Amino acid sequence: MKHAILLCSALLSQCAATAAPAPKQGPALAPTEIVAAAPAADWAPIAPSDLLVMDLAPDAKGAARRVVIQLLPAPFSQGWIGNIRKLAAAKWWDGTSVNRVQDGYVVQWGDPDGEDKTKAKPLPPGLKVVPVGEYEGSPPQKFEAQLATSFRTHKSDDDYYSPPIFQTRVGELQVIYDGFPIGIGENRKAPAIWPIHCYGTVGVGRDYPPDTGSGAELYAVIGQAPRQLDRNIAVVGRVIEGMEHLSSLPRGTGDIGFYKTAEERTPIRAIRIGTDVPDLPRYQYLSTESKSFAAYADARANRRDAFYIRPAGGVDICNVPVPVRRVK
Amino acid sequence: MKHAILLCSALLSQCAATAAPAPKQGPALAPTEIVAAAPAADWAPIAPSDLLVMDLAPDAKGAARRVVIQLLPAPFSQGWIGNIRKLAAAKWWDGTSVNRVQDGYVVQWGDPDGEDKTKAKPLPPGLKVVPVGEYEGSPPQKFEAQLATSFRTHKSDDDYYSPPIFQTRVGELQVIYDGFPIGIGENRKAPAIWPIHCYGTVGVGRDYPPDTGSGAELYAVIGQAPRQLDRNIAVVGRVIEGMEHLSSLPRGTGDIGFYKTAEERTPIRAIRIGTDVPDLPRYQYLSTESKSFAAYADARANRRDAFYIRPAGGVDICNVPVPVRRVK
Repeated sequence: MKHAILLCSALLSQCAATAAPAPKQGPALAPTEIVAAAPAADWAPIAPSDLLVMDLAPDAKGAARRVVIQLLPAPFSQGWIGNIRKLAAAKWWDGTSVNRVQDGYVVQWGDPDGEDKTKAKPLPPGLKVVPVGEYEGSPPQKFEAQLATSFRTHKSDDDYYSPPIFQTRVGELQVIYDGFPIGIGENRKAPAIWPIHCYGTVGVGRDYPPDTGSGAELYAVIGQAPRQLDRNIAVVGRVIEGMEHLSSLPRGTGDIGFYKTAEERTPIRAIRIGTDVPDLPRYQYLSTESKSFAAYADARANRRDAFYIRPAGGVDICNVPVPVRRVK
Repeated sequence: MKHAILLCSALLSQCAATAAPAPKQGPALAPTEIVAAAPAADWAPIAPSDLLVMDLAPDAKGAARRVVIQLLPAPFSQGWIGNIRKLAAAKWWDGTSVNRVQDGYVVQWGDPDGEDKTKAKPLPPGLKVVPVGEYEGSPPQKFEAQLATSFRTHKSDDDYYSPPIFQTRVGELQVIYDGFPIGIGENRKAPAIWPIHCYGTVGVGRDYPPDTGSGAELYAVIGQAPRQLDRNIAVVGRVIEGMEHLSSLPRGTGDIGFYKTAEERTPIRAIRIGTDVPDLPRYQYLSTESKSFAAYADARANRRDAFYIRPAGGVDICNVPVPVRRVK
C-alpha cells in the first residue's frame, strides 16, 4: 500500500482537512428520523407557482401518474423557466409524450417529431433564445449570508468540507442552498454559482452548441448523477413527487434509449404550472438553511444508527436529497 | 463570493492538486467512441464461472428477462460468493422472487418469507457465517503493481487525483481495478481495499449487525451510488447485462419499497452460475489496466466531444462504469 500512503503524505493538508470526525456517543437518529422530528418552523413552503405538474396517461391498470417538479429559484435558469411557463400556459405539451428512457441516465419528454422540421409541433410565440452564459448565475447577496451561516455550523477551518459544504471536485465548491444542490466557482473576478445534476434533476434538452434548448424538450435524471452535464446544459428543477412514474418506465431499445415506435411512448395528458392545477396539494421542503437540515446532512454523511457499523465520514452532495412533504 | 475564495486559499495545496488540466487540442472522441476503437487486446474475458445468471419470469408481453451479474474477484467477499455458488448449485432461488423495489435505491430479491422463521425456505447446508472483517480485503501483490502503472499515466504528483485514481472522500482513495471500483484505506499498519457501491452494484442483504447476511438475500443498486453502505455490507458483484429488468420494475408501495402483496412480486425462474447456463454468450470487459480504459476514464472526466462546451475536470468513480461487450 506504499502508493496509497504516499498519496496521503504528499497532500497532507488535504488528509487533515478531510479527517473523519469522531463518532458521537449515545443513540443516534437515522436521517429519516431527524426529518420526522423537525419542527414546523424548519419546513419552508413551495409556492404552487414554482411547481410544474405533469400528468401522464394512466398506467396499464388505470392508475393516475402525476409527476410534480419544483422549478429553480432565481438566479438560476430563469430564461428557460420563463419559456416553460409560456409553454405550460399554452398547453403546448398536451398530447406530446415521453420519447426516451435510457437506463441509468435520463427520461426525456416533449414533441416526438421535434427534430423533423416538416413535422414538428409549432412552439408558442415569444419564447426566448437563452444564451450559454445563463447556465450559471451570479450569487445573490443572501447567498453569502447563507454560506456564512453554514460555516458557523463547523468547528474550525479544517471542517470546511463537512456538510453542508461538500467535498469539492476540480475548481468547484458545493452547497445545498435554497432547496437545491449548487456548485460554486472559484473565479474571484467573475463569481458564479450553478445548479448541480443529481437523481431527479430536470433539465432542458438541446441540440449541439451554441443551441441551448427552448425548454420544450425536458429530461429527468434516473441514474447516477451525470455531473458532466453541469454548466453544459440548463437545469430547471427537480422532481419532488411521482419520480417512480418516470424511473420505472420501460427502457427504449433504440439509439440512446429512444423508443423505436410511437406505441412505446407514454402519452402526456397535460403539463401545467401548479397555480393552474385545482387538486394540487401544498408542499413544503425541509429548509436547507435550518438546523434540522444540517443535522440531516450530517447524518447522511455519518450514519451512526443501528444498521451501520462504520460511518462514512463524507457524502456526495447528490446523496443528500432535500426532503419534501405534503402539508396536511 | 468571499467565502468561496477563502475556502480555496485556506486549502491552497488542495486547489492546486485538483487543478483542471488544459483541454487537449484537436478533435476529441466521446467515451463510447474510445471504447468502440479499443483494440481486441484491451478486452479481457469474463469467465462464465464468475457470472451469476438470473432469469426472471417473462414480462407482461412474454419477453424473457435475464440479468447477468459479474461476481467480484478475490480478495473481495469470497465468503459470501462461496455461499452464492452453493445456493445457485442447490437451485435455492428457483421459485423465489423480487420482493422490494425502492426508488432511487435498491431492488432486492430472495425468499419473501425469509424474515419469518416459521415460513422461511430452508437454506442449503454448508453456508458460511462470514465475519464483518471480510467487508474489506487485503491488497494482493499485483494490486500494488497496477497502482504503480496507473501512476505512470500521470504527469506529476499533482495529478494523483486524475483518473484512474479518483478524487477521494474522507480517509479513502479510489481506483478502478480488475474490473471493479475499489476504495483504498490509508492505514499503514493494516492496508485494506474494498468494493464501492455504484449503480448496478450487487450486494448481500443482512439483518442488524453483527449479522452479515448469508448471500441468499441480494440487492442491486438502482439509483445514486449509496456510498454509505461501503464497508457496512457485503458487495459481491455488478450487473453487466439486463439491468433494465430490475431498474424498471414497479416500485413497492410498502415500507422501504417492499411489495405489499405476493401478486406484485416478480417471480424468479432460476439463478445459476454461468457454467450451468448452456445458452449464455461470452462476455468481455474493457481491461481496467489497458490504455483504452485510461483514455475512456479521462474522457468521462473531461468531455471534449462536440456536445460539450466545458469539460468538468473530474468525475465520480461511479460515473466511469466499466464497459462490457458480448463476444461475437
